Amino acid sequence: MQDDFKGTGLDSQDAEAFRVQAHKMLDACLDQLEQAAERPWQAPPEDIDRRYEIQAVERGAEDVVGQITRDVLPFHGGNTHPKFWGWVQGSGLASDLIASMAASVVNANLGGRDHAANRMERAVVDWTRHKMEMPDSASGLLVAGTSQATVIAFQAARVRKLNDVRAKGQGARQLTAYASDGVHNATRKALELLGLGAECLRLVPSLNGQMNPQALRDMLKQDREAGAHPFLLVGTAGSVDIGAFDDLDALADLAAAESLWLHVDGAFGAWTRIAAQPYRALSDGIGRADSIALDFHKWMYVGYDCGMVLIRNEVEHRAAFSARPAYLEGADRGLAGGEPWFTDYGIDLSRGNRALKVWCALETYGEVAFSDAITGNCQLAELMAQEVSAQPLMQMGRDVISNVCVFTARADLAPDAQSALNNEIAQNLQESGEAVFSTTGVNGVTMLRAAITNHRSRPEDIRAAIDAVAREAANVTEIS
Amino acid sequence: MQDDFKGTGLDSQDAEAFRVQAHKMLDACLDQLEQAAERPWQAPPEDIDRRYEIQAVERGAEDVVGQITRDVLPFHGGNTHPKFWGWVQGSGLASDLIASMAASVVNANLGGRDHAANRMERAVVDWTRHKMEMPDSASGLLVAGTSQATVIAFQAARVRKLNDVRAKGQGARQLTAYASDGVHNATRKALELLGLGAECLRLVPSLNGQMNPQALRDMLKQDREAGAHPFLLVGTAGSVDIGAFDDLDALADLAAAESLWLHVDGAFGAWTRIAAQPYRALSDGIGRADSIALDFHKWMYVGYDCGMVLIRNEVEHRAAFSARPAYLEGADRGLAGGEPWFTDYGIDLSRGNRALKVWCALETYGEVAFSDAITGNCQLAELMAQEVSAQPLMQMGRDVISNVCVFTARADLAPDAQSALNNEIAQNLQESGEAVFSTTGVNGVTMLRAAITNHRSRPEDIRAAIDAVAREAANVTEIS
Repeated sequence: MQDDFKGTGLDSQDAEAFRVQAHKMLDACLDQLEQAAERPWQAPPEDIDRRYEIQAVERGAEDVVGQITRDVLPFHGGNTHPKFWGWVQGSGLASDLIASMAASVVNANLGGRDHAANRMERAVVDWTRHKMEMPDSASGLLVAGTSQATVIAFQAARVRKLNDVRAKGQGARQLTAYASDGVHNATRKALELLGLGAECLRLVPSLNGQMNPQALRDMLKQDREAGAHPFLLVGTAGSVDIGAFDDLDALADLAAAESLWLHVDGAFGAWTRIAAQPYRALSDGIGRADSIALDFHKWMYVGYDCGMVLIRNEVEHRAAFSARPAYLEGADRGLAGGEPWFTDYGIDLSRGNRALKVWCALETYGEVAFSDAITGNCQLAELMAQEVSAQPLMQMGRDVISNVCVFTARADLAPDAQSALNNEIAQNLQESGEAVFSTTGVNGVTMLRAAITNHRSRPEDIRAAIDAVAREAANVTEIS
Repeated sequence: MQDDFKGTGLDSQDAEAFRVQAHKMLDACLDQLEQAAERPWQAPPEDIDRRYEIQAVERGAEDVVGQITRDVLPFHGGNTHPKFWGWVQGSGLASDLIASMAASVVNANLGGRDHAANRMERAVVDWTRHKMEMPDSASGLLVAGTSQATVIAFQAARVRKLNDVRAKGQGARQLTAYASDGVHNATRKALELLGLGAECLRLVPSLNGQMNPQALRDMLKQDREAGAHPFLLVGTAGSVDIGAFDDLDALADLAAAESLWLHVDGAFGAWTRIAAQPYRALSDGIGRADSIALDFHKWMYVGYDCGMVLIRNEVEHRAAFSARPAYLEGADRGLAGGEPWFTDYGIDLSRGNRALKVWCALETYGEVAFSDAITGNCQLAELMAQEVSAQPLMQMGRDVISNVCVFTARADLAPDAQSALNNEIAQNLQESGEAVFSTTGVNGVTMLRAAITNHRSRPEDIRAAIDAVAREAANVTEIS
């Protein structure tokens, strides 16, 4: 059999030639990083589907590296550009490139077993837990992002309430959950997935973006009287629309008094924890939560995807997910050692390496650089608000709380005309490559929205972008 | 403000110096790939936690690259070594290194919007759907792995049965699911997470690793008479323990007759679809499923993590997950265009780029190389069985069906002594770096198990490994 064994085509036949191509790819990638400011988003070319169509006929590394340089690198999502503030997207770090190379050749599965990548994930969990002021009893898991983290946290919350739910299923028992009306849709999606149903979510009215505690108490009382079983309170640290923060200390008191699991959606806002004042104070009390969901790929600027769930009580975390059939039994030594295994803390058995890029970022740049960048993003949101207010026809939609600035380009127009204009401006500036705003609704008007989680943004970028909005507002209304 | 703006510490201060370090990292990574055969698993050093502890004090790229080379690369999980056959782990490709660099600097979020990375994921879905013989109506999503894919598929199956479940929750309606007794634990875990409960899973007895259709029919009848609502049939293409395949055509007929959603767990076995005969025939009928879960990081050798869910009917896929609040509204042009958005097909809103590594692998090496490697792995499992059978005291635990070989090193000992010996041998060979077997139970005996999903394995590796098992068996039993 040795002679006719054919399964060797995937081994690099010419290692030296491959090395040359890999270095060529790296140089193109480094160029891309260095030229981030000159490379805004551009729409994919019309024939992109044809260019990407998989032929699966051996082409070799040289051809593939050439095509990636030509057809992949230029058509990114724009979030690496200094004037990108759409939605809440991180900007990516040079250290990601170092980490991605190493992670690729190590090719570890971080579901379990005794190898070093798992130990690095534990180091990342430890650092994060400490920053979020959670106790040593807390456990954590790197996941794709806050959506996954939310599913995991809610399952742990449910298992605390219904400890037979893993075996018996949800059944007729009506659990209810509470969140402010500005809560991210990830909460609703998680409740749907878990079979709790979106209708179990009670939206608590907010005052200035903060959940109203008295309204919450009233709803709890009413729901209990109607036979429901309240189990979960979701606090928001950084609302997606306006960057608002619930009073997490107040929610922690309330959760304790009402025997609710307190989960904090801190997707980006949790990172005010390492910012300077007054921004740091926004997330005071976050460490009192039963669980926190947060992302590294947003306001820690680390490459996609990279989020984390933290659960206050490791025993409750494990109780929600641990399961180890015969073929996954651990051992006291050898590769099957290395307890605990991360698969016991979440959905996935096969898990890629997200820890290295976080580790690499923190060790390369140091926490102070992240702290300054986060604080700086909040200062830029303030600056944007000043620039908006200095424009005669523009108007802020909401006060700036943290890093989100929402405004309309022409407050003097009727609501529908404002919405149409703001949409038009957002699209025009995206297509011209000058700036990326997204849009959101405020009191029935679609407004421009900048969520600044971008370490490449500078004060002059903010000023240039608002000037461009003013110009577009004048142009578009002249034409129409 | 411009003068005292501090948020600039994360920009590479010296691009040239960084470039030098990045190339140094790449060379160390290429060395690692080239020396895969000389670098087996080794246990992490005792002080690894101290080495990895995050100080988060700026160190710069040179220091970090040095430490990664010293403290990260050597302590991998072993699955890149040609004699690694533990559990079911892929071996990683050189093309992953190219893809990981480009994906890192593009830093795309593939949740949605109009950028090219999403288009490449569609190309990967198209190719895979075609290989799996699913119709053009099928949709797909890259996910961490089969565990995630299973959750997504089961949720779609549930929504078909209970179309108000996203709003109302599971409630008292007792749904039941069916799978062979060799089904992977991912099925049970998914049912738990969804709030269906593990007890809703009925394990159907198998004959020679295949689900017994008559037993299934009997169970369905009984359950229906007891008031349950059967909704899901899980077929296995490649069982984790022994590499067995359900008769997927028979299950598809049965699912149609009984109005069940047919899901196929094809984590590794789905890839027999591109293997030569007789292995290809094992997965005949897979394209008739309502959903398929499969991994690229196992038997397509692509780096961790990378799996996919395919759903036969795109409308049913979207019905299970689509949700777009105001801040995620699409647009007809600009960055917010680009329908469909992948977030509408799964749990995650933020999604990293898995498509590029699959694309890069297929385009670099071509499908034939993968086909040969997969077929070759099955041939190596056959060869291992021959080598085992040629050893006087060894004995196969099961016949080889595909790429899994299960055997005991000393069939002449009592069951407990065999189990202890096989465990000891597995651990000894892991620690000596000679070969990685995992273990599994067969009729009460813990046996050695090789699941060959490794493109670096050669016939001589198989022979050397079985010789090493024989030597250990003699040594260990002499000592004890």
